[in-house]
Amino acid sequence: MTTQTKPLLRVLAGETLNPPPVWLMRQAGRHLQEYKDLRAKAENFLNFCYTPDMAVEVTLQPIRRYSMDAAILFSDILVIPDALGQKVSFVPGAGPKLDPIRTVAEIDRLQDERLHEHLAPVYETVTRLRKELPEDVTLIGFAGAPWTVATYVVEGAGSKDYHTVRSWAYRAPAEFQKLIDILTESTTSYLIKQVEAGAEALQIFDSWAGVLPPDQFERWVIAPFQKIIGAVKDRFPQVPIIGFPRGAGLQYATFAEKTGVDAVSLDSTVPLEWARDHVQVHTAVQGNLDNLALLAGGESIEAEAKRILDVLSKGPLIFNLGHGVLPDTPVTHVERLLEIVRGD
Amino acid sequence: MTTQTKPLLRVLAGETLNPPPVWLMRQAGRHLQEYKDLRAKAENFLNFCYTPDMAVEVTLQPIRRYSMDAAILFSDILVIPDALGQKVSFVPGAGPKLDPIRTVAEIDRLQDERLHEHLAPVYETVTRLRKELPEDVTLIGFAGAPWTVATYVVEGAGSKDYHTVRSWAYRAPAEFQKLIDILTESTTSYLIKQVEAGAEALQIFDSWAGVLPPDQFERWVIAPFQKIIGAVKDRFPQVPIIGFPRGAGLQYATFAEKTGVDAVSLDSTVPLEWARDHVQVHTAVQGNLDNLALLAGGESIEAEAKRILDVLSKGPLIFNLGHGVLPDTPVTHVERLLEIVRGD
Repeated sequence: MTTQTKPLLRVLAGETLNPPPVWLMRQAGRHLQEYKDLRAKAENFLNFCYTPDMAVEVTLQPIRRYSMDAAILFSDILVIPDALGQKVSFVPGAGPKLDPIRTVAEIDRLQDERLHEHLAPVYETVTRLRKELPEDVTLIGFAGAPWTVATYVVEGAGSKDYHTVRSWAYRAPAEFQKLIDILTESTTSYLIKQVEAGAEALQIFDSWAGVLPPDQFERWVIAPFQKIIGAVKDRFPQVPIIGFPRGAGLQYATFAEKTGVDAVSLDSTVPLEWARDHVQVHTAVQGNLDNLALLAGGESIEAEAKRILDVLSKGPLIFNLGHGVLPDTPVTHVERLLEIVRGD
Repeated sequence: MTTQTKPLLRVLAGETLNPPPVWLMRQAGRHLQEYKDLRAKAENFLNFCYTPDMAVEVTLQPIRRYSMDAAILFSDILVIPDALGQKVSFVPGAGPKLDPIRTVAEIDRLQDERLHEHLAPVYETVTRLRKELPEDVTLIGFAGAPWTVATYVVEGAGSKDYHTVRSWAYRAPAEFQKLIDILTESTTSYLIKQVEAGAEALQIFDSWAGVLPPDQFERWVIAPFQKIIGAVKDRFPQVPIIGFPRGAGLQYATFAEKTGVDAVSLDSTVPLEWARDHVQVHTAVQGNLDNLALLAGGESIEAEAKRILDVLSKGPLIFNLGHGVLPDTPVTHVERLLEIVRGD
């Protein structure tokens, strides 16, 4: 039996709750007018993430509005390369832009000496959030997984095909391993610091895990997850970790079995019965309503949400989307979803 | 027992051959200098596809150079919306561009009366190819699947997230069904005409099948495939059909079981043992070397190709890539791969 009292932590400890706890990836963000109002006051997106007054406030907005069971630290996965000294910026309407790293010499120029100094505002945000959150709400810290962060580090932006980074991994795996190792180590100590600051659970986002063939997935997704989770759990054995290898398809089962995660976040392409039989037998599951169904509204929200509850709520389930809330999603659609999940 | 003598057709009829027949998606294309030389002479890409002298020649180039077991008609999946009257163009370096269709009124303006007149040069290309190909080489005709073609029709270009088309499918499924039905019917009669012109096998490409959740996959991928394959096989029961629902992950097994295809083309993320146990039990399989491994060269080609042969060559296998040959792939890498597959 778990000694936890917060619903999300109880499920992460293996309990089955009905109704299940619920939060939504990107619940803090552009679908909320109050978010857009505050965002307009910040100079740029990274600055917004590094200003505790703002990051605390936007993290709390969806908690006030929707009474979610979890708040996730408002930040970005690219704070790690930024803290390591790579030039990172966010071009409005065009996404992240980085001075790409494509040689060993460029990898060697990454510096981790000032990592925690650079990320201190993030830790302050975590500490303040932990004090301000209602007592039933779990505070989730997060980071990007090394593979996904590496795709941005090497491609220099979002990519459609990841050719540059994937070619490097095939052509010179020892070189690419060096980059992955640096990201693995910084991510590990970043997550540990978040726990020290007050994070009660962690989620690691591997948004582009789905583009890798099985042997590459093993090396660039499974292995770094194992290292990070092993090291975090050495320090904090009780802190639950949610892994999100988005698009992993058939590799979700291996991921659940091998990485040591306490829960697996499922994208919307994962069939529910398969997830029940091959993932939920190993860990709790989180997911996986299609964010497009939530955006579209109408009957699809109810039909899709009920199917998820039917198949997955007999075991440990955290209700969530399969990916983040889309900017044009009406607040009323989120409210309707919460009524359905909570059986109101 | 099959009465076929061509290696590719024997495997499609269920035989296991060692070495397996081999061809590569996009074997005719920019990785060949002789292709680029000819392409430079055409006014634009669609014009290139619609000029039998050119299309025949580029289809034959990889057959001459590599002695592949199959030639695939050189064309593009967007000839269907082009033939239906949607404005389609190819912007060099930026991919296809279409005047997007987003209302029922716009769907109603699509016209199929002149479909075959418009596509007559494609049929002429098929007929000429059939006469010119060496006797052991199978001629494959092809088309895009309705879902994938619809993503271009609605988004107006390649997309990263397919939000517009996927929202429409959720918001107004009956409207979107109308578009899918038009594409299903035109594709069916387009493929039948290709067989009449001389195609000996067909491949249907659903390149963006992987973005759909299971119930959407059922409706927009499985159902149209069933209709097309049913109708083609009514006319030509002996013509084998290869389906390629790229990125379908866990849904590859359902696809193999339900659609009536004779072979399933596997992308590189599909684990080999799983494909053997869940797909190859239903149909022949085709694939699935990572095109990035082929581009990178070195040891990865040999290691990856041998794993595929080890696991999948005990059943009906057509060796291929998991996606098309990339433009920068050296010819020597393709030659090395063929030596490995053929055991030279």
